[in-house]
Amino acid sequence: MSASMESSMFTPHKYFLAHISLDCVVFGFHENQLKVLLAKLKGRDEWGLPGGFVGIQETAEYAASRVLKERTGLDQVFLQQFYVFSDPDRGEQLKEVESLKAISGSAIDIEWFKQRFISIGFYALVEFSQVEPTPDVISDACQWWDLAEVSKLMLDHNLILQKALETLRLQLNYQPIGYNLLPATFTMPELQRLYEAILGKQLDRRNFHRKITGYGILKKLNERRTGVAHKAPDLYSFDLDKYHQALKEGLQGGW
Amino acid sequence: MSASMESSMFTPHKYFLAHISLDCVVFGFHENQLKVLLAKLKGRDEWGLPGGFVGIQETAEYAASRVLKERTGLDQVFLQQFYVFSDPDRGEQLKEVESLKAISGSAIDIEWFKQRFISIGFYALVEFSQVEPTPDVISDACQWWDLAEVSKLMLDHNLILQKALETLRLQLNYQPIGYNLLPATFTMPELQRLYEAILGKQLDRRNFHRKITGYGILKKLNERRTGVAHKAPDLYSFDLDKYHQALKEGLQGGW
Repeated sequence: MSASMESSMFTPHKYFLAHISLDCVVFGFHENQLKVLLAKLKGRDEWGLPGGFVGIQETAEYAASRVLKERTGLDQVFLQQFYVFSDPDRGEQLKEVESLKAISGSAIDIEWFKQRFISIGFYALVEFSQVEPTPDVISDACQWWDLAEVSKLMLDHNLILQKALETLRLQLNYQPIGYNLLPATFTMPELQRLYEAILGKQLDRRNFHRKITGYGILKKLNERRTGVAHKAPDLYSFDLDKYHQALKEGLQGGW
Repeated sequence: MSASMESSMFTPHKYFLAHISLDCVVFGFHENQLKVLLAKLKGRDEWGLPGGFVGIQETAEYAASRVLKERTGLDQVFLQQFYVFSDPDRGEQLKEVESLKAISGSAIDIEWFKQRFISIGFYALVEFSQVEPTPDVISDACQWWDLAEVSKLMLDHNLILQKALETLRLQLNYQPIGYNLLPATFTMPELQRLYEAILGKQLDRRNFHRKITGYGILKKLNERRTGVAHKAPDLYSFDLDKYHQALKEGLQGGW
């Protein structure tokens, strides 16, 4: 795929729909931190979200999963569109010739990047440990960043990241989360840390326990975390039938 | 606006971005029924959602509000993007020459309609009584339909309508609703009928009362509905400060 992808960037108008791009906000969770995957443009000290274009015969979802596979090595990722970014001036930065020269080392069609793009934002939740960050043809680095350490990104990518995070926070109120961000088994404190990392605030332990078990999406396992000094904590996994039902119909406690 | 809109359909490529369309699911509430605004294609017995294209210097939101103003006469409507529809075959129907001839009476550029469009879905919640349904240049009727009476629509518009309704149902769990669908003052049973119409199911009166007042978005007024035979029901309005806060941050009861 990456070979054909590379050649497609020499004559992109033959492969992709004009005016439509996509940007992927890939969240991972590691050591109690929410991480986001960023790529660095070739020859510039500027980072941005992994992105791409929609193939002439692709759905936007297929295009996003293709981009994600290229950047992370992952298939079958939890991937969801969340917003369309269509400010007519969002691409101004790419129209500056200097900015384009930097990424044009490999004979990429510069005119393609100068057109106006409306970008479909996707967010993905992935298991941090399974990702192999991989740069694409216009970037020379791809790596995880702590959300708290992300500064000025290219184009409107800070806005896209912010909107993805807001979407995730709102969705905590009506959809289950965690299956794609945590290992198969986890402790209650680990799940709470994930919620806290997404919400950016601390939660009360008892309220969290009461509320999350009330959703009926957790299975308490007949095993405990071993190798810890004191009282071994209970292990949980998601009840996948109920989890997927709740993804579709909303969490219990709705109307 | 409608004059320039008409002329823009003769040479649409000069006015609009290629490959991108938008479709508006306009919901209204009347006599305890959820209604949706549909337009009928010229010369065909086929109905569809009001839609349009994105002007070369417009945001998608601006384009949607422009389309909505043209179809309903309304400004400042609650309008929200909810999903992008990008099946490469979703426009197949429009490629049939017969189908296009029917709407080409006014010298519209047929080639424009034959390209592949990725459509951004918007939904709007409007006060039924304030809408003046108005056909556009490719339709000869525009009117409200009971949601329950909607049958096969053009293209993938049934899917778009279904997805809008699912979005609305999920959003009932974390966002307030009703301000744009009900008159300024209303009774508790009227608000409950709205929720029931959206959810497509009956709700328990007491649970509804407890839950909706728990959100803290209602103001009980010092007046009652007059002109009714028996005990006059209490009147309510939304506390707009708290309503808008909840729109942004989610309803109380979240994390």
